[in-house]
Parts: sequence; C-alpha cells; structure tokens
Amino acid sequence: MNKVDNTRELIIQTSLALFNKKGYSQTSIQDIMKATGLPKGAIYRRFENKNEIAIASFEYSVSIIWNHFFEATKSKVTATDKLIAMCHIYKDAVNNPPVDGGCPLLNTAIETDFGFPELHDKAAEAHNHTLIIIQSIIDEGIRSKEFLQDVDSYSLASFLFSTIEGAVMASRLSLNNEHMLHSIGQISILLQHYSEKN
Amino acid sequence: MNKVDNTRELIIQTSLALFNKKGYSQTSIQDIMKATGLPKGAIYRRFENKNEIAIASFEYSVSIIWNHFFEATKSKVTATDKLIAMCHIYKDAVNNPPVDGGCPLLNTAIETDFGFPELHDKAAEAHNHTLIIIQSIIDEGIRSKEFLQDVDSYSLASFLFSTIEGAVMASRLSLNNEHMLHSIGQISILLQHYSEKN
Repeated sequence: MNKVDNTRELIIQTSLALFNKKGYSQTSIQDIMKATGLPKGAIYRRFENKNEIAIASFEYSVSIIWNHFFEATKSKVTATDKLIAMCHIYKDAVNNPPVDGGCPLLNTAIETDFGFPELHDKAAEAHNHTLIIIQSIIDEGIRSKEFLQDVDSYSLASFLFSTIEGAVMASRLSLNNEHMLHSIGQISILLQHYSEKN
Repeated sequence: MNKVDNTRELIIQTSLALFNKKGYSQTSIQDIMKATGLPKGAIYRRFENKNEIAIASFEYSVSIIWNHFFEATKSKVTATDKLIAMCHIYKDAVNNPPVDGGCPLLNTAIETDFGFPELHDKAAEAHNHTLIIIQSIIDEGIRSKEFLQDVDSYSLASFLFSTIEGAVMASRLSLNNEHMLHSIGQISILLQHYSEKN
C-alpha cells in the first residue's frame, strides 16, 4: 500500500486555487511557499519545477469538476435532468464555482493558447474527455427514446459544454450569474425541443 | 481637423495582437518596441504606461469585432440570417479570427478576472454593449413576427454570445473549428424552433 504524501497533496491543493485565480505565469514558487507555509526544499523534493506543479494541479482541478458532475447527476433519472444538473454546478459561477477562480479548463485553455504546450495538451485532453461524458448521457437519452432518434449527440455535447464555458466567462465578467441562468434556460428549451414526441 | 497620429495608431494596432496572443502580463514595453520598431521615447510620449496601451488596444480590438458584426449582417434581411452571420465571423476561430489570437473579449475577461480592474471593467462594458447589439436584432425579429412573440430577447442574446465565446475557446483549444460549427448548428435549430408558426 502506498503511503499518501500529505505534503504533496497540500502543495497541489493550495496551488490549484492560486493558478486558477492568478494564472500560471503570474504565480511564483514564492507564492506557493507562502500559501502552503512550506520551505522551498519541501516543494522541490516533490516537483522538479513550477510547470510540474501546474500540470498536477490542473489534473486535480479537472478531477474536482468531474466529481461535481458525477455527484450532480447520480440521483437524476432522465438524460435531460442529468444534463441540466451538470450545468448547475456552475449556477453560482461568480461566487462559488467548484474550483475557486472559475473554470480551470477555460482559464487554462485561454492562458496556454500561446505557450506552455504541455499544459495546453492536457487541457485539450480534458475537454475531449468531458465531451465524451456529456455525449454518453445524451446517447443514453436517445436509446431510451427520451430524445428524438436523429439527435447528433456529439454535436449537442460540444455545444452544451461551449455554452456553459462561455456563460462562466460572461457571469464572472459581469459579476452576475444571470448569464449562466439564461444559458441554462435556453439549453432546457432546446432539450425540450429534442424530446418532443413527433 | 485633428491630424491623425500615425505612430499612435501603429502602437495600438501592433500591440493588440501581442496582447491578444501573449496576454497583458506577458507583453512588455520591450516587446512593443521590437514589434513596432519604435524607440521607447516614441511610445512614452503617447502613452503614460503599458496599461494605457492595453486599454486603447482592447478598445480598438472590440471595435474590429463590432465592425465585423456590422459587415457580416448588413446584407442580411431576416433576424435569423443576421444572427447566424454574426456567429460566422468566428467560423475559423482556429486560424483566422477577426483579431489574431482569438476573441479579445474572452481573453481579456479571463486574464483580468483577478487583477487590472480598469481593463476588466472595459471588458464588462464591451460584453454588455455586444448583448445590446444582439438583442436589438432579436427584437427586430420579434416585431416583424419572424420570431414568436414570447421570446425573451435578452436571455437569448446572452445565451448566443456565451455559446459563441465558449465555442471559440473549444475550437482553439482542440485546433478544430468543428466545435464552432456544432454550436452554430445548434443555435440554428433553436432559432428555427423560435420561428415556428404555432
């Protein structure tokens, strides 16, 4: 049995909020030392450099989001209810997102668009995996005849996630969650359209 | 008649691509000197500091986007065609967005979420103004009875812009414009739903 390295966990969990708020380029090892209360040696014994902490923190952040998705959907029966419940994890994007500082996938995608290609690739993988999770719920709804049989599940999954990510940006920018609620409302209408019995 | 300061224009137009790609914090006055070929004095005679260049560059970037919106919609007759034409300005978000480096509103919103509050406020204003432009097109479609009378034009405008912004992120992250095209396709279906004659 592997012993859990609590110090490593502390570094990751403390850093992910710093990275998600200030960005990778603006967060220094000194910031991480200050926030964790650890000396430099305790950090460098566990991570070769800041980039290695950034990648581990990003992967941990994404696992938090997926865990929120899982928790939000597990008690829901219909595909529509599951999809709307997933959207709701960002219903208070302004003050209480699953990871402090907004959506780590969105923030990382934007910050690493020119630079830090290794982390950009991790964000692209996480985006792809998230679409697969959403698509599987839509496919379930098609199989159970909740949705019309000609619904393009990948297209709908891509659209749903883009809408939520854009609404996180809009809500946080305007300090007003109404943008997230408007997007969820319009998504509900589209899902209803796809479940109309013709 | 005011004489146009060509050097000021050169600084703004060169800087906006640097800022939109590398971000504000990662772009230095030295980068701007190198890209414009201007000495430091020529820059500081026109701008007090980097932040002042950033704000002028952001405002210029947003005017480019709005101009693309205007050009894309002016020959369209229906509200639906105008809204879809607006979305299409980002149809090649990966390789040929209206401003090199992706959407300046999205990039600026994310980068200034914690820090540079003056620019964050400018981005929030630009977001708000963009929604008013989109809402006015939807209201036109309601008045002309192209859309159903109970469509909530502000909610739909907020949703449309969030979707496009999220799809810019998704397309650029995955280096694949299919995400933008999927979002435009789903938006088209929703607009069609809103124009069904009941």
